[in-house]
Amino acid sequence: MTMQHDYVTCTSFAENEQHGVQSQEKILISNGHPGKPWQPARSKIRGCLRRVQTAMLSLAGLEWYCYAALGVLTALMSFCMDLTIAKLLRAHQWLYGCLEGNILLQFLCWTLYPTCLCALSTSFSHSICPQSAGSGLPEIRTILSGVHLPDYLSLSNLFAKLIGLISTLSAGSTVFLGKVGPFVHLSNMLGAYLYRLYATACGDKQIRSQGEMLVVASAVGVASCFGAPISGVLFSIEVMGSHYSIRDYCPCFFAAVCGSLTYRLLSVFSREQETVQAVFKTRFPSELPYQPPEILIFAFLGLLCGAISCVYLYSHRWILRFVRTNKFISRVMATEKTLYSATVAFLLASVTFPHTGGFFIASQLSMKQLITSLLDSTRWNLISHNVTVAQEAPHSLWQEWSPPGYSVFYTLGCFILIKLWLLVLACTLPLPAGYFMPVFIYGAALGRLLGEGLAYLFPDGISSGERLSVINPGGYALVGAAAFAGAVTHTLSPALCALELTGQSTHVIPILTATLISNALARSRHQPSFYDGISLIKRLPHLPSLIRACPKLSSIQIRQFVVPVGAVLQRAEGVTGVQHVLNSSKENEFPVVDTHDSFTLLGTVTRAQLQTFLLSNQSQDLCKSLEDECSIQPVKLQLSTDATVKQAHCIMSVLREQCVFVTEMGKLHGVITWKEMKNMIEDLAKEI
Amino acid sequence: MTMQHDYVTCTSFAENEQHGVQSQEKILISNGHPGKPWQPARSKIRGCLRRVQTAMLSLAGLEWYCYAALGVLTALMSFCMDLTIAKLLRAHQWLYGCLEGNILLQFLCWTLYPTCLCALSTSFSHSICPQSAGSGLPEIRTILSGVHLPDYLSLSNLFAKLIGLISTLSAGSTVFLGKVGPFVHLSNMLGAYLYRLYATACGDKQIRSQGEMLVVASAVGVASCFGAPISGVLFSIEVMGSHYSIRDYCPCFFAAVCGSLTYRLLSVFSREQETVQAVFKTRFPSELPYQPPEILIFAFLGLLCGAISCVYLYSHRWILRFVRTNKFISRVMATEKTLYSATVAFLLASVTFPHTGGFFIASQLSMKQLITSLLDSTRWNLISHNVTVAQEAPHSLWQEWSPPGYSVFYTLGCFILIKLWLLVLACTLPLPAGYFMPVFIYGAALGRLLGEGLAYLFPDGISSGERLSVINPGGYALVGAAAFAGAVTHTLSPALCALELTGQSTHVIPILTATLISNALARSRHQPSFYDGISLIKRLPHLPSLIRACPKLSSIQIRQFVVPVGAVLQRAEGVTGVQHVLNSSKENEFPVVDTHDSFTLLGTVTRAQLQTFLLSNQSQDLCKSLEDECSIQPVKLQLSTDATVKQAHCIMSVLREQCVFVTEMGKLHGVITWKEMKNMIEDLAKEI
Repeated sequence: MTMQHDYVTCTSFAENEQHGVQSQEKILISNGHPGKPWQPARSKIRGCLRRVQTAMLSLAGLEWYCYAALGVLTALMSFCMDLTIAKLLRAHQWLYGCLEGNILLQFLCWTLYPTCLCALSTSFSHSICPQSAGSGLPEIRTILSGVHLPDYLSLSNLFAKLIGLISTLSAGSTVFLGKVGPFVHLSNMLGAYLYRLYATACGDKQIRSQGEMLVVASAVGVASCFGAPISGVLFSIEVMGSHYSIRDYCPCFFAAVCGSLTYRLLSVFSREQETVQAVFKTRFPSELPYQPPEILIFAFLGLLCGAISCVYLYSHRWILRFVRTNKFISRVMATEKTLYSATVAFLLASVTFPHTGGFFIASQLSMKQLITSLLDSTRWNLISHNVTVAQEAPHSLWQEWSPPGYSVFYTLGCFILIKLWLLVLACTLPLPAGYFMPVFIYGAALGRLLGEGLAYLFPDGISSGERLSVINPGGYALVGAAAFAGAVTHTLSPALCALELTGQSTHVIPILTATLISNALARSRHQPSFYDGISLIKRLPHLPSLIRACPKLSSIQIRQFVVPVGAVLQRAEGVTGVQHVLNSSKENEFPVVDTHDSFTLLGTVTRAQLQTFLLSNQSQDLCKSLEDECSIQPVKLQLSTDATVKQAHCIMSVLREQCVFVTEMGKLHGVITWKEMKNMIEDLAKEI
Repeated sequence: MTMQHDYVTCTSFAENEQHGVQSQEKILISNGHPGKPWQPARSKIRGCLRRVQTAMLSLAGLEWYCYAALGVLTALMSFCMDLTIAKLLRAHQWLYGCLEGNILLQFLCWTLYPTCLCALSTSFSHSICPQSAGSGLPEIRTILSGVHLPDYLSLSNLFAKLIGLISTLSAGSTVFLGKVGPFVHLSNMLGAYLYRLYATACGDKQIRSQGEMLVVASAVGVASCFGAPISGVLFSIEVMGSHYSIRDYCPCFFAAVCGSLTYRLLSVFSREQETVQAVFKTRFPSELPYQPPEILIFAFLGLLCGAISCVYLYSHRWILRFVRTNKFISRVMATEKTLYSATVAFLLASVTFPHTGGFFIASQLSMKQLITSLLDSTRWNLISHNVTVAQEAPHSLWQEWSPPGYSVFYTLGCFILIKLWLLVLACTLPLPAGYFMPVFIYGAALGRLLGEGLAYLFPDGISSGERLSVINPGGYALVGAAAFAGAVTHTLSPALCALELTGQSTHVIPILTATLISNALARSRHQPSFYDGISLIKRLPHLPSLIRACPKLSSIQIRQFVVPVGAVLQRAEGVTGVQHVLNSSKENEFPVVDTHDSFTLLGTVTRAQLQTFLLSNQSQDLCKSLEDECSIQPVKLQLSTDATVKQAHCIMSVLREQCVFVTEMGKLHGVITWKEMKNMIEDLAKEI
């Protein structure tokens, strides 16, 4: 039951399976120590285990079990995290409720709780692994493009990010940050760890590379975060870089389904839900969800979201640059990160205190409640004016949006005006946090405002043809959420994410239309996306974002960056030469040229081959040349110095080459490994 | 409002836009003839048009208008086709109804109508363009992988395929063939035509290649066929080959949304539907669509579909080979295609005649009615036993499945047993036809049978926890349809297609689970997919399907296939040599080597450069060498003879290179263009 389209690997699948079985067997057999008790029982169990193992590996290759494990573990992590955060949020609400009547104590409770949590998150993550701060997505994109970033996939980072993220999210809607980005980073760290296990079990003959595992992990991250497998896969396709290998398509889907199935089953077992359902299930009317003319209004909403996303992205880049360049703040950030976090969190909490500004922006609602309330299909403005209905209805979430004496339009307007700047400020916090969910909610509020406005203008609904249908502001909120999130991240997967989160596909066409339009506006004039902006400001060696920001870089040739090869052997090299090269260089592979004068590249030899050559010649005391004893491995692919950096990057990342030789008219000119590529990209970044 | 991630092109977008504007302007200006009347009015209109054009091209590049046009035109074509087919089918039904009472006449009407239509389809398509027969998808995949197949994208083929497909589909469920495959082919032909227009308008500086337009057209084909944009895009990702360029992602979505929006709006305007809705809208209960334990049964259904798909694929390959190898049939097929089609159609119609075998397989239902009835959420077996309910209910589609005196299980069982062989037979018909929809319906019947069986076993439903929920056989039918179609085509996009067709995403997890499992079973042991099978039997030069069928081919090196370069110039070549090379070869680009002895590759010169060189030397009578006058363009990428065919194919298709030089130790050894690549793949195919 192997599921594969292995068009790129050379090893046949059957061979590899067999190899996997054998290597696993060896591990098991070597565990049998002769001196231990119950030998017969133990050998029976060993036999059983071996049979199970053989049966499992004959069903599918080891990598498929790794994908399944990745999905299940990530979902478990996501679920436990959600549970912990929910408990911490409830504790805060309970404490705040207990202090009813004493405004000062309530203020302290409201502000100090998130302040402490943010301080904890910052200090914890920075003391264990400073790389765990931020979303992590720009770094993951860089790693996926082929560049090695040390420490970003370590287990200590996983631990720091997990605890830090729980603290951040427990601070609730006050700091207004999300889960998706860091969660994709978490699942990548888990994927990298599982890959190390897989590589150990398979030895040299593994058929999957780490890059493939990380692409799968990106899909799993999104899928396990919301139980949304399809948008997870689309996300991994979009985020991957310039080319997506179809070989990763089935593994992505498989792992994403494992993850989201586990996530949803866990919520069934915990009695949160009756069956496997969407996370933010909506109840939009399915018979006549909207009238055809409304598509034009949805398109306008897309345009609006695109325009506001430009404002947001500009402010975001500005504040990131300000924090880095302002002397006072950058000094505080360098030495007192915790203090900075605490101060900003306190500021944010003070503004959103329910007895002051928070009264107008529904600040008592948690992130989940914000989405649920905004996607509600009832028309708030109509209900709030209809006093009988409002009084009869039990206390529901939308009433937070309509405090006594204030219209829904007022609160939604305040939310949109205030939250944008609060969010921009929150983005500077140096702690593990995601920025997708806040943007999604903000977009939902934008859409909701438009929807409520339309419902106010057309209280009886819109008619086209025979039937009349009332306006559903929840639909507008959903479309706005997808369009705004899509515009900010320059992706289309939020459209699918919106569909999968709500479990209804009535609005598929409006959502896609609005997301495309908002994307078109946001991408115009080479404006960088949210992640591109972070990549550029953090100076990450991510070529695609550099080229999107400055398209003229795509024509720069590798000529000026190529580093000459350090150690080169010639065809007729003797023992002394080889000895010298081995001592002077730590590389594992050495290029062989015709002669040191002609410098025509013939191929490569490995360090092991050279060592064997030295050994055999020391013992025999014969003076053979390199060519006689070592088989020179020919170089399959050569670039000329006229190739552009972009072409070199594309070839190396698509073909997953670790090293490419650069020749000019047959002569060896230099070599590009990922280390050199990283330097090249960093040099290019300076030219912007 | 440019929507782009142009990571691969070198030209900046803004430059190109400007170029587009200028070239368009020139065309308009040149239309002004001085001798014609109403000069002022005409020049005003011209000015207006120019301003509109400039405004449009400043909004987005010309290619985006091409994508939109592609989507809209394909959707229009799809809608008109559906309308014509519906009318022709209704005419047949009306005639058949009029002859009620006279079985002989009814038999003649039932059999001769599809026989004539199939004969018409065959003779029409073969007389205009023989390449229009069949699905066309295997050929499109081959073209997308880079190989040029003449006549497959011509306008005459478009015309032949369109008329042929309408005739085939008007024969109805008797011949049991579908629309998707040929429709993707149709949209590709339209895409190729629009690309030619685009290339003419842009001149040399177009930034999109034909390959990109065809990828977009593949997405549009599926999207316009059902109004399902997301599965269209996923289909184009899967079908493309080994690597999907993210640059095509936004265009694919944009065109697919244009197509499906147009398709759905057209059905609103024609008053088929009230608003933009799914084509086969279901009404599954959304509160508790299924109990968690049912996921195991869905997984079993996936396994069942996978197993039966293997039987189907084996029979399909067998019959295709039989038709090609059997002397009698192959002679008939070579000379009397129309006769063969008519005979097979008559045979199929005789078996499905409602007064004989058709009575047990609901043969009176059309393809659309078959899907709608199978996806119905009521439990047929329960209703058919409950006489009062059955009599009270108006005549509905499910009653066709439960003829008086026979149980639903009997008819579903007969359908599954008989239709498989009828479908295998219908696949040999040499006319334009798709094979996706029949497979989808067959899978739905499989799922329905399992669902009805479960509903019979658990009449009160399944309980887990507090609430009891009745079995929904429609859900099983949907899952079965996606799983079987996915297994037959070795793709996952049918899962999404099922969701988009029904407009409900309650069953997303079961559908994905079952499709993954059925795919896993169908892909085991390197069995070729439906399309791979056709590619192999038709000996199409499609490398991925060859390698999937025979993985050891992936390690074959290009060494044995490389063709030496015909005309080579040396650096110091004089006038005579250049003259000789120009006369002896028709190439546009010539490699330049150091000397004819060393053969070290230096770069290339174009035919135009050589002609200039000749001209200047003839007039001046000086004997300059090539090197002095022509700038030798260096070769950016070289392969060695040790690279595998697969690697060469991958590099050429990913980087969209038209020509790659093969060197060995710096010496020019040969050249690979797509022509040579095609020959290589054909040579490889002989080795299977």
